[in-house]
Amino acid sequence: MTKEEFEQKAAYVKAKVSTVPDFPKAGILFRDVTSVCDDPKAFSLCIELLADKFKDQNIDAVVSAEARGFIFGAPLAAALKCAFVPVRKPGKLPRKVISENFELEYGHETLQMHEDSLKKGSRVLLLDDLLATGGTMEAMVKLTKKLGADPVALSFVIELTGLAGRKRLEDEYGLEVFSLISFPGH
Amino acid sequence: MTKEEFEQKAAYVKAKVSTVPDFPKAGILFRDVTSVCDDPKAFSLCIELLADKFKDQNIDAVVSAEARGFIFGAPLAAALKCAFVPVRKPGKLPRKVISENFELEYGHETLQMHEDSLKKGSRVLLLDDLLATGGTMEAMVKLTKKLGADPVALSFVIELTGLAGRKRLEDEYGLEVFSLISFPGH
Repeated sequence: MTKEEFEQKAAYVKAKVSTVPDFPKAGILFRDVTSVCDDPKAFSLCIELLADKFKDQNIDAVVSAEARGFIFGAPLAAALKCAFVPVRKPGKLPRKVISENFELEYGHETLQMHEDSLKKGSRVLLLDDLLATGGTMEAMVKLTKKLGADPVALSFVIELTGLAGRKRLEDEYGLEVFSLISFPGH
Repeated sequence: MTKEEFEQKAAYVKAKVSTVPDFPKAGILFRDVTSVCDDPKAFSLCIELLADKFKDQNIDAVVSAEARGFIFGAPLAAALKCAFVPVRKPGKLPRKVISENFELEYGHETLQMHEDSLKKGSRVLLLDDLLATGGTMEAMVKLTKKLGADPVALSFVIELTGLAGRKRLEDEYGLEVFSLISFPGH
């Protein structure tokens, strides 16, 4: 796919993102990725573009966090013919898990991954629907490294450029940070 | 695909389902579908078989409930080149929603869908990871019908045959109930 074709298709996906004012609270301009998957062409293009970007990287597994991350991470794994490994909140995964705590604006969050879900040295693509501050992705990277697997790239459907999430992740891990589409603000 | 080939592939997927005793509580034998998506071949076959089953039904949208349903519903929608419409717990969907309450073993649950997510008369495939009593699927059917859309079939990756969920759904809605693999018990 040429760069022009890629950008044209990404622009189609971007045009399908709806913007919802004051969600989940007053003052937030929420970028709603579910309006992308509601649209067959936009959803199909979104997965096609992500798969095209990473198809030559010998990815063994896509890792995504619940729940919106699953909507894009699982089809991407299917397109790349690799494993899909879910990251979940406590109490949801039935086998033995590893955990990672991280800070939110108010309070803390814990995310977990099955201990036997990634092989040592396997090449892992991390995908989340949205890059804001980067906190969720940082926890996903730590979980991946704890299992001795190799994070190849950190990818997002949407990047909000006003919160310095990209800089935080690039500085901390020196990995490629890729987002399909981006919006200014937070 | 021949019936034999289909069954052989489904048997491969079934062999990858791990069984976890006493989760989420003592006495429950939990059928863990995440061990299917941890395995590239099993995950790929699972989506291939579901897509093969429904490819000639002119499906406009796949509807699945969070969070495990997304892992199979979203790739199935991508394979069928149709929309993917998420059903979520309250407070998660940003646009205007419709709601459906249903009973669990202890207490109640509410599920929601975006009001503008399905067009009137569109052909909808409902997919959940697991059929137990059928309560979640019943709520999904009601949400779909509230929007004037047409549920074509009710599908599952795993069916537990000991809880009469299939009979409840068939009797109530007269729709095809399809499960890729099944286990006795509950």
